[in-house]
Amino acid sequence: MVVRVDLNISLDGYATTTDQTPEDPFGQDWSRLVGPYTATRTFQERVLHEPGAGTTGVDDKHAAAYFEGIGSEIMGAGMFGLHLFPDDPDWQGWWGDEPPFRVPVFVLTHAPRRTIEMANGTRFEFLSASPVEALELATDAAAGQDVRIGGGPTLIKTFLEAGLVDRMHVGITPILLGRGIYLWEGLRGLEDGYNVSAETAESGVVHLTFQR
Amino acid sequence: MVVRVDLNISLDGYATTTDQTPEDPFGQDWSRLVGPYTATRTFQERVLHEPGAGTTGVDDKHAAAYFEGIGSEIMGAGMFGLHLFPDDPDWQGWWGDEPPFRVPVFVLTHAPRRTIEMANGTRFEFLSASPVEALELATDAAAGQDVRIGGGPTLIKTFLEAGLVDRMHVGITPILLGRGIYLWEGLRGLEDGYNVSAETAESGVVHLTFQR
Repeated sequence: MVVRVDLNISLDGYATTTDQTPEDPFGQDWSRLVGPYTATRTFQERVLHEPGAGTTGVDDKHAAAYFEGIGSEIMGAGMFGLHLFPDDPDWQGWWGDEPPFRVPVFVLTHAPRRTIEMANGTRFEFLSASPVEALELATDAAAGQDVRIGGGPTLIKTFLEAGLVDRMHVGITPILLGRGIYLWEGLRGLEDGYNVSAETAESGVVHLTFQR
Repeated sequence: MVVRVDLNISLDGYATTTDQTPEDPFGQDWSRLVGPYTATRTFQERVLHEPGAGTTGVDDKHAAAYFEGIGSEIMGAGMFGLHLFPDDPDWQGWWGDEPPFRVPVFVLTHAPRRTIEMANGTRFEFLSASPVEALELATDAAAGQDVRIGGGPTLIKTFLEAGLVDRMHVGITPILLGRGIYLWEGLRGLEDGYNVSAETAESGVVHLTFQR
């Protein structure tokens, strides 16, 4: 079992964008940041339910790896959407009736709500817990498979700073956003103890892998 | 004639390090940042005068391109060393009797000093001038060849912000420094108008090229 992180950042290190509103919940920068990822066959099929659509190159290879061997996931309240829809007890996330996860997902929040069971194996469980406590639960739920720290970047940074991440894939989109949440703050020397490899995609995205 | 920039940055975007002292004029972070570059055959031969030494892979291809077709260079006072040795009128830079440039080099400083002519074609000329004024002089001196904005990063940022750079090569070393001068500050949208391509080296360095 390894603890994994997969995320996209801009060339200037922004791991997510901060121009979201209820009307535009992803924000204007987001589509540019994740454009090459959302264009992949894996995303088109698994998230948008468009069989046969999407790119099949290096970006897709990494996108497919994003889901392979994952037994459970931990995500922050913001990624699930609780900050934008705090008063909607029926909010089930962004992903419709068939979320792409298909495993138990532990959502960290100070205001837990009822567990949501989806038909495709996705189960959203809400926890007020420390990262280490959440990781213990997620490890049990993964039953020997890997645990993914899904995001957002603030949660990912918490796990990185605590030394809990075994493998991190970072897709660097060659654009400069100049705003958002800067992934690398406080992570001087992170590369110690990891092998870092790089691969470039047809889209211009650079895929970095930190592997313990 | 194109205006070119070549520099190394860390994964977290630091284009130079700030832990220099007179006793350790490059600082502790510098050797890690530029290690793959200084290991190249081009650097070993052209800067250290060690014929036949050095690596000959992707890093060296980019290192060699660093010097090809350059007719003149502009650099800041800090890169020449004037900030560390302001009271030494005989200071001739870091590069000994055979600096690697072999072309006219215009050093921007508010305290110009006498021009230094070296035997190998390198000439250091000191100017109190704006970037545009310096570029006009350097363009004339280049006689149809390219002008390189050598550094440091603050000077490079000035030229980038002014839209004066036609081609930029950035070697990204996969380490997190967490301190230094952050190249990308204020450069949101820089990629507009450039084609951006990426290539990975055996060393793990990712070579990005912004080409107009």
